[in-house]
Amino acid sequence: MKQKKVTFDDIAKYTGFSKTTISRYFNHPDSLTVENQDKIADALKELNYQENKLAKVLANGQSEFIGVIIPNFYLGYFSEMLNCILSTYEQFGYKFLVFIGGNNRESERKYIGELLAYKIEGLIVLSHTIPSKELASYNIPIVAIEREDEYVNSVNTNNYMGGVQATNLLYKNNCDVLLHINSDMPEDIPAYKRITGFLDICRDHGLNHELILRDFGNSYSETKSCLEEVYQYIKEKYPGKKKGIFLANDTHASIMLNLIFREYGRLPDEYRLVGFDDSPIAVESVLPISTVGQQIDKIAYTAVELLVEQMNERKKRRPQPQKELLHKEITPVLKLRDTTDNP
Amino acid sequence: MKQKKVTFDDIAKYTGFSKTTISRYFNHPDSLTVENQDKIADALKELNYQENKLAKVLANGQSEFIGVIIPNFYLGYFSEMLNCILSTYEQFGYKFLVFIGGNNRESERKYIGELLAYKIEGLIVLSHTIPSKELASYNIPIVAIEREDEYVNSVNTNNYMGGVQATNLLYKNNCDVLLHINSDMPEDIPAYKRITGFLDICRDHGLNHELILRDFGNSYSETKSCLEEVYQYIKEKYPGKKKGIFLANDTHASIMLNLIFREYGRLPDEYRLVGFDDSPIAVESVLPISTVGQQIDKIAYTAVELLVEQMNERKKRRPQPQKELLHKEITPVLKLRDTTDNP
Repeated sequence: MKQKKVTFDDIAKYTGFSKTTISRYFNHPDSLTVENQDKIADALKELNYQENKLAKVLANGQSEFIGVIIPNFYLGYFSEMLNCILSTYEQFGYKFLVFIGGNNRESERKYIGELLAYKIEGLIVLSHTIPSKELASYNIPIVAIEREDEYVNSVNTNNYMGGVQATNLLYKNNCDVLLHINSDMPEDIPAYKRITGFLDICRDHGLNHELILRDFGNSYSETKSCLEEVYQYIKEKYPGKKKGIFLANDTHASIMLNLIFREYGRLPDEYRLVGFDDSPIAVESVLPISTVGQQIDKIAYTAVELLVEQMNERKKRRPQPQKELLHKEITPVLKLRDTTDNP
Repeated sequence: MKQKKVTFDDIAKYTGFSKTTISRYFNHPDSLTVENQDKIADALKELNYQENKLAKVLANGQSEFIGVIIPNFYLGYFSEMLNCILSTYEQFGYKFLVFIGGNNRESERKYIGELLAYKIEGLIVLSHTIPSKELASYNIPIVAIEREDEYVNSVNTNNYMGGVQATNLLYKNNCDVLLHINSDMPEDIPAYKRITGFLDICRDHGLNHELILRDFGNSYSETKSCLEEVYQYIKEKYPGKKKGIFLANDTHASIMLNLIFREYGRLPDEYRLVGFDDSPIAVESVLPISTVGQQIDKIAYTAVELLVEQMNERKKRRPQPQKELLHKEITPVLKLRDTTDNP
């Protein structure tokens, strides 16, 4: 049962306005008086008019779509970031076309190709597979979050400060040895600076420390197996020592905490843990986990805001090309919880 | 720096084909030989042609968009379901416009209004706020998942069987008392049948049991406070008894398990727990949680498949109206893990 389509003609007849006025209502409502806007709005309701935004998009290129590419859902950080990005609909009104890359460059390329065909106005990229130089060549506004960002705008946590905060906290916990467990990543990934921060503080204070780099794979179970191996390694290498462990993210920290808890039934004095991100798992774990909080809501908001600015610029009659790339840094906030001794 | 737009004229000139042939390539590629298809495809690459799918959508109404409305992200079930829905892109090619309802009926209505203006072809609804009668009135293909579904198609777990499975498992664990903790929900929500299944088995076997219904609020922290209260209540009411607890979902089961673990450092014989969903938290918790597995990937796939069938029907020259609503049930699969004694 399809309803008969309501046309501009119908609306014009119903309201007594000209078709031009109706068209102006849709394209430049502010050129009408508020009274006339209300009259037309009421008529649309009465007539059960179904706006076709696609026609408008074709005319003015403004789809109000933003594409989002995230690598996976099993790291709590990404699902929480997506949650926060989607929540900006209330402020900005943009709709999100979401894709999970799963570390597959070809399927990401294919998906971006599709998005471009749908005239998305901008793109937020959290996955690492496509180099920023290639992303920039798509010639639409792009904001990267926590990935290589040489040729595109980005919003990142101040990762160096985060590394320093985590390491200082473990240092103040009087640990005998400080351990940082992370992926073996290229130096141009923002998160690499967490490693730099860790090493700088350890060297400054002359602390006994070890950087443990591993490939954590592409799934929760691979990550878990890898961390089980690391846990055995640490236990055997540093028996009886008080170990301060700084993990790459809260999902890793929660896995490590579970391993310790299953062995001891508690977190013994021998272990102190700090995660990274302040993703939901940090408070949902068996003990609330001390962590370097990325202000995920703020990062998401800033990324969309930055994108909106660029998208708005392109809607001007004479858009100015962006003079220089913007790389915004959001301050991390240390969250003191139950896996460290806190001042 | 905008690139000059490549037109059908340009492609025709470049390839030597007529404009009609180029148009056929885009609308009915199979009407050309594979050889000619390849020639045009190569030319498109050479010319750096950017397809505008929106123009096609306007012409034939086929946007290839599906809207998805989920209630929240803090229940692992919903984020995993979204993950599985998004993953069907590889099979079906539909793109997803995702919205988090946050239990706000008005903002969901507004969002659906927007989606309709963008000519989405179908809608998947997991949130509970809008009655199915209203959803059906939008007159587009809709599939509901685990919500009231009187007037729309749906895919649900066989919730009654799930309730029976969980209760039978706890019964076989020789518990002194069986407890089911759930929300006080209307009987027309599919999950209500878990309660019916629990009560039927308890009554059949003449088991000591209690149904504990609470309002768990709309956030993780509200849910946690509520479960802390329930935990105290159970401890005081059934001291020394072996308690078999069937929880509404794995997120709740994980919170309960953490409360017990923090007190005892392990899961004592006095407690046996079963969750529901088999969402990721069930294996990520301090102990892997026994649970009634909803086959989330299968539910997501079936929902999209059902939607695609209806959307395809509408693309026919003489679409047949759906004769009767489809309510598909997916069998739950009991996952025996570490929070129960297993046969």
